[in-house]
Amino acid sequence: MQAYLDNSATTPLCDEAKRWMERAMDDVWGNPSSLHKVGLDAELMLFDCRKAVADALHAGESEILFTSGGTEANNLALFGAAYAKARQGKRILVSAVEHPSVMKAAEQLRNEGFDLQILPVDHFGRVSLAALETMLTPNTTLVSVMAVNNELGTIEPVAEIAAILKRKKSKALFHIDAVQAFGKLDLSPKKLGCDLMTVSAHKIHGPKGAGALWIRPGVTLRPRTFGGEQQNGLRPGTEPTVAIAGFAGAATMLQPVKNLPRVTALCDRFVKSLRQMPEVQINSADDALPYIVHLSLPGWPAETVLNFLSDCGVYVSSGSACAKGHRSPVLAAAGLDPARLESSLRISLSDTTTEEELDFCLQQLQAAVRTIRRKG
Amino acid sequence: MQAYLDNSATTPLCDEAKRWMERAMDDVWGNPSSLHKVGLDAELMLFDCRKAVADALHAGESEILFTSGGTEANNLALFGAAYAKARQGKRILVSAVEHPSVMKAAEQLRNEGFDLQILPVDHFGRVSLAALETMLTPNTTLVSVMAVNNELGTIEPVAEIAAILKRKKSKALFHIDAVQAFGKLDLSPKKLGCDLMTVSAHKIHGPKGAGALWIRPGVTLRPRTFGGEQQNGLRPGTEPTVAIAGFAGAATMLQPVKNLPRVTALCDRFVKSLRQMPEVQINSADDALPYIVHLSLPGWPAETVLNFLSDCGVYVSSGSACAKGHRSPVLAAAGLDPARLESSLRISLSDTTTEEELDFCLQQLQAAVRTIRRKG
Repeated sequence: MQAYLDNSATTPLCDEAKRWMERAMDDVWGNPSSLHKVGLDAELMLFDCRKAVADALHAGESEILFTSGGTEANNLALFGAAYAKARQGKRILVSAVEHPSVMKAAEQLRNEGFDLQILPVDHFGRVSLAALETMLTPNTTLVSVMAVNNELGTIEPVAEIAAILKRKKSKALFHIDAVQAFGKLDLSPKKLGCDLMTVSAHKIHGPKGAGALWIRPGVTLRPRTFGGEQQNGLRPGTEPTVAIAGFAGAATMLQPVKNLPRVTALCDRFVKSLRQMPEVQINSADDALPYIVHLSLPGWPAETVLNFLSDCGVYVSSGSACAKGHRSPVLAAAGLDPARLESSLRISLSDTTTEEELDFCLQQLQAAVRTIRRKG
Repeated sequence: MQAYLDNSATTPLCDEAKRWMERAMDDVWGNPSSLHKVGLDAELMLFDCRKAVADALHAGESEILFTSGGTEANNLALFGAAYAKARQGKRILVSAVEHPSVMKAAEQLRNEGFDLQILPVDHFGRVSLAALETMLTPNTTLVSVMAVNNELGTIEPVAEIAAILKRKKSKALFHIDAVQAFGKLDLSPKKLGCDLMTVSAHKIHGPKGAGALWIRPGVTLRPRTFGGEQQNGLRPGTEPTVAIAGFAGAATMLQPVKNLPRVTALCDRFVKSLRQMPEVQINSADDALPYIVHLSLPGWPAETVLNFLSDCGVYVSSGSACAKGHRSPVLAAAGLDPARLESSLRISLSDTTTEEELDFCLQQLQAAVRTIRRKG
């Protein structure tokens, strides 16, 4: 028995993603920019892919910009928006619990002369709306808050943030990093009222190497990459057709509305069992996205537990995979004490996770606390 | 019968690339940053991939930085080097015939305050070494010249450029865009004496969506993308394992030394036949890379000929695929008159091109000039 429960780090490819990728590998391998038939076939496939991803966001094809992944999309959103708006103001607001590809891009913008302000969060990592109201000045040109936190699973109040920006008639562009929410919540960036939204393929059973930035019609970004005419020159470079095809194939399979109740039930049952273990403390909020369960085993070092579980065939994460070996600034911002920080594990589900896998994980967690010597 | 002769735009996947990709799709699909076994397996695969690409460049694994393709690698080389060296000087030299992903990045650097100077070329697009000697001032910190021009096939004197930089004790970093040369000439960036070299997967029968920047040990670049700790933070973001695996698989199959004489013979025979067509003018130099034949049919618009050929199953390019529909600044720099410019075709070979394909192309070219009405 094995239980892969690190789906917020990456997911295996689904069959539909593979089917689309195989078509791009075997049959439609041309350069979409080539003017002959081999190229046109690739261009047509790319159009279908764009439509598949757009459909999953209830958006139009022309609003989808393909990137090499979430990191590139987040970087383009931050640099592209900040510089496009720089004449109108240089204040940018970013939550304290953003992914490094937002936070470090924002810090670089600060190094380049922008006025970066960090939106505070509560102990679940949820952005304070009251603080936003105060910090949103007339010269604020960009606000970036994620839809779901990648470590705690906290659902951020992005609709409320959009409403505040609208009510205050703010000229700020609102970017949502929706990498962890895409396919799990039914997202419609247009309805949500944001201007930019990042999504990624490899968290939804697509391949690593493809992502997209949804851009509201009329919003102009300064390009970050320079070269050919692809994607209107905003993201030049020959499109990664195989990865994009896999992204599209995976996007066609998303059923957030149908899956959420089932995963919620699975998660509730799992958390209930976890709470019966005296060693376990649950860090995720009760109303967190049920695809992520963040817990601590104070006294048991996360890496030791992780390795024990890995040897048993249970795969979970300690902190975020993007910050391998480093203490999570997100968890620090959320105010976790050192004992909870150092013993924290993230267990992340997907729409294919089963009761049996979660039961197996629980069993092995129980074995881990029995077997591993407690520290401190 | 079909003849795909647009291999400088992109190439179909080779079987070995597919085999490596399938492994990354089916078996080794983890996130290389994850600490459990599924992640470690992916990290080990990534190491093998890095070694395969490094081997093809006679380089060390740690010198290979994976990117999403040639465009990103060229952008990182230019911005990364220019900014890393900005305190020592702001003059950068770029040849007049660079790919847009170098030229437009350089122009953006000029917009940001750098002193961009364009190295002139002869009518084959070959960089003038005499001009370089004059233009290479003590405050020059970056020189970027491609190994082989993507439109004319001209082999640039990159070894001579490296020698001039060395003789003049220049502090400039030397970047070579080797996208069109990789796998066709036996490149050793270390021996060549450059500091940075760009290569791409999809020109060598690997997938679109992977490239690499070779970085000489000791050379520091300023990152262009910000995020996680991947690739030492210089290029964060989860690695596109499927595309990288395909890149590596394709790299293991490269045999530039073995293939060059055969392709040279094929090309010579083809050019000899072309020269017997009174309508044809060959634009490529006699000593151009034999994988690229650039010709003009003055009076016959390139796009009309291209479409005619495409309908016959012969796939060639008009100008560079990266500048779809636009007049080539490279050919203008090389001094081609309008009649030759507007009727120019690029026929590009690969190591799998056959005599039969070239004969078929010739036949259809002859049919094209007979069938299409001449203009002007």
